[in-house]
Amino acid sequence: MNGGASAALGALPVVATVIGDPAGIGPEVCAKALALDRDPRSARHLLIGSIDAVRLAVAASGIACQAYPVRSPDDIDDAAGGIAVLDPGNLPREAWSVGQAGAASGRAVIEWIEIAEGLARDGQIQAWIMAPVDSSSLKLSGKVEAIDDLQPEGTYLLRVSPSLRVVPITEHIAISAVPASVNASSISRLIEVVDDSFQRWGVPGARIGVAGLNPHAMGMEEAAEIAPAIERARAAGRRVEGPVSPDSIFRLAIEGRYDVVVSMYHDQGQIALKTAAFEGACTIYIGLDYVRLTVPHGSAMEISGKGVAQHASMAAAMRMAESLCCGKGFGDGPP
Amino acid sequence: MNGGASAALGALPVVATVIGDPAGIGPEVCAKALALDRDPRSARHLLIGSIDAVRLAVAASGIACQAYPVRSPDDIDDAAGGIAVLDPGNLPREAWSVGQAGAASGRAVIEWIEIAEGLARDGQIQAWIMAPVDSSSLKLSGKVEAIDDLQPEGTYLLRVSPSLRVVPITEHIAISAVPASVNASSISRLIEVVDDSFQRWGVPGARIGVAGLNPHAMGMEEAAEIAPAIERARAAGRRVEGPVSPDSIFRLAIEGRYDVVVSMYHDQGQIALKTAAFEGACTIYIGLDYVRLTVPHGSAMEISGKGVAQHASMAAAMRMAESLCCGKGFGDGPP
Repeated sequence: MNGGASAALGALPVVATVIGDPAGIGPEVCAKALALDRDPRSARHLLIGSIDAVRLAVAASGIACQAYPVRSPDDIDDAAGGIAVLDPGNLPREAWSVGQAGAASGRAVIEWIEIAEGLARDGQIQAWIMAPVDSSSLKLSGKVEAIDDLQPEGTYLLRVSPSLRVVPITEHIAISAVPASVNASSISRLIEVVDDSFQRWGVPGARIGVAGLNPHAMGMEEAAEIAPAIERARAAGRRVEGPVSPDSIFRLAIEGRYDVVVSMYHDQGQIALKTAAFEGACTIYIGLDYVRLTVPHGSAMEISGKGVAQHASMAAAMRMAESLCCGKGFGDGPP
Repeated sequence: MNGGASAALGALPVVATVIGDPAGIGPEVCAKALALDRDPRSARHLLIGSIDAVRLAVAASGIACQAYPVRSPDDIDDAAGGIAVLDPGNLPREAWSVGQAGAASGRAVIEWIEIAEGLARDGQIQAWIMAPVDSSSLKLSGKVEAIDDLQPEGTYLLRVSPSLRVVPITEHIAISAVPASVNASSISRLIEVVDDSFQRWGVPGARIGVAGLNPHAMGMEEAAEIAPAIERARAAGRRVEGPVSPDSIFRLAIEGRYDVVVSMYHDQGQIALKTAAFEGACTIYIGLDYVRLTVPHGSAMEISGKGVAQHASMAAAMRMAESLCCGKGFGDGPP
């Protein structure tokens, strides 16, 4: 395990959560998850973002739990039972309104993410979670074009649901660009990242299924690119199977044959995940020394400030972050 | 409704079933479905193929039902309660063995299919079903390369499960060839064929969802090809929506928003169907004046002759064929 990513011996890990867009439901689901579903024996928790937004969310939700400011993870006072918030003071209260996207919110979120990344790289936190950001606020900020731009270079997005874990070699690229992106070196690298990450997270010797690209996995790319990458990984002792027919591999994974599926393009896995309607899925950025994940829902501006947002996904993400950064696997999901 | 495809007024339609590979489980599932699950008020049934194979299957299954030869659909004698078999005598008993693929079987199956097609085109039968053929037998026959070659020109394969109906614009083509195949005229034609077929089958004004090609349906092909085809169909009064994000459309259909999904490539729909693990799916060839369908399982040579094959898929296919050719919709599925 990477030194910076593991908690000091005997100490609880620190899991930070960036509150996401302050005007959306992010602060509310963070506050509810910490007030209602926290297990203080598993981790120390910290929010990063506007403490005003957290306090408004606490008030709107009727939670009996106070937010208090901290300057670093060292200041977390678990005995107090409140919600520790690291607020760099970059978003004045008058610069944003509940339920409305805005440039100031977008800029502030990007800075909070940079703070979380810095703390994680320094080993001051062992995991961090991104609550829902808002694509309109991000665009208005003028700093990024889309949520995709928040993905660190060299990382992959592993989707985790209770029954299926899938990671594609590419994200939002056109289908016409997919065949050229299916090459042995990319697939080899992703297999290595997946296997090493699973090992670090507490799933050694993960059974990895690799999807084919074409119908029934019978095409040029399977022979020229996918099969050689699989052979190389097997020669290195990794438990990899494939290329498996794309229309069968997700069912096989659900039935327990694979711990994770490597897919050849975004929709291949997303169609499987969304059609099967798995609840509680979250997304893990893999290829980093620390645990970073995000919840699968949006900022839901239209219900923000009403106290009615569901916090189950955020609570599940916090449980998973705690479990992964201690090398205890995925928690409630399959082994 | 096409005149040749409809049963004469007051008469029951005739549904024929080609027994598939005589050495596989086709004859057995046909015989069981007719002996155990037939509703004589819905249709008159006929098998096409080797009567020897049907008799062996009846014996192996312990069914109390006799096969009897007919020379045409007119000879079906429902009062007798047996299984009418049209056997052109093209497969000597010594030319094939239970459980083994062979050239003679492959050649015979192709001829039985031609007989069924001829009867359907002539209006002597109103629907026909293909029991499982065997790809090895077909290849050995030297007449076709693969099962795909049995698909009539200008037809599409509509997959029907109790919760989801999907038809792609192409079948087994490489992903690299998919973008060029997504063109407005192909999509327009498929929408028309689907809408007209559903109308004839008893689902007028079908709600048709059209999938996009790219992630979140945001790409060049959506704007240049898919949207114009949808606009044209809507202008013609058809109930068409799209392009819909490929990772959402199948879930929306399952939840009842669409009667059928038009998909942009084979795996897009097959991943959804197979991951959701729908039982009882069958495939309908659309674009024909008569009803033609096939069951979703293979010839299962390894269990042939043992009397243990499950006939539920074949029975469901017979029910659906009866219902569709009378314009009564899909039967048990959603409206």
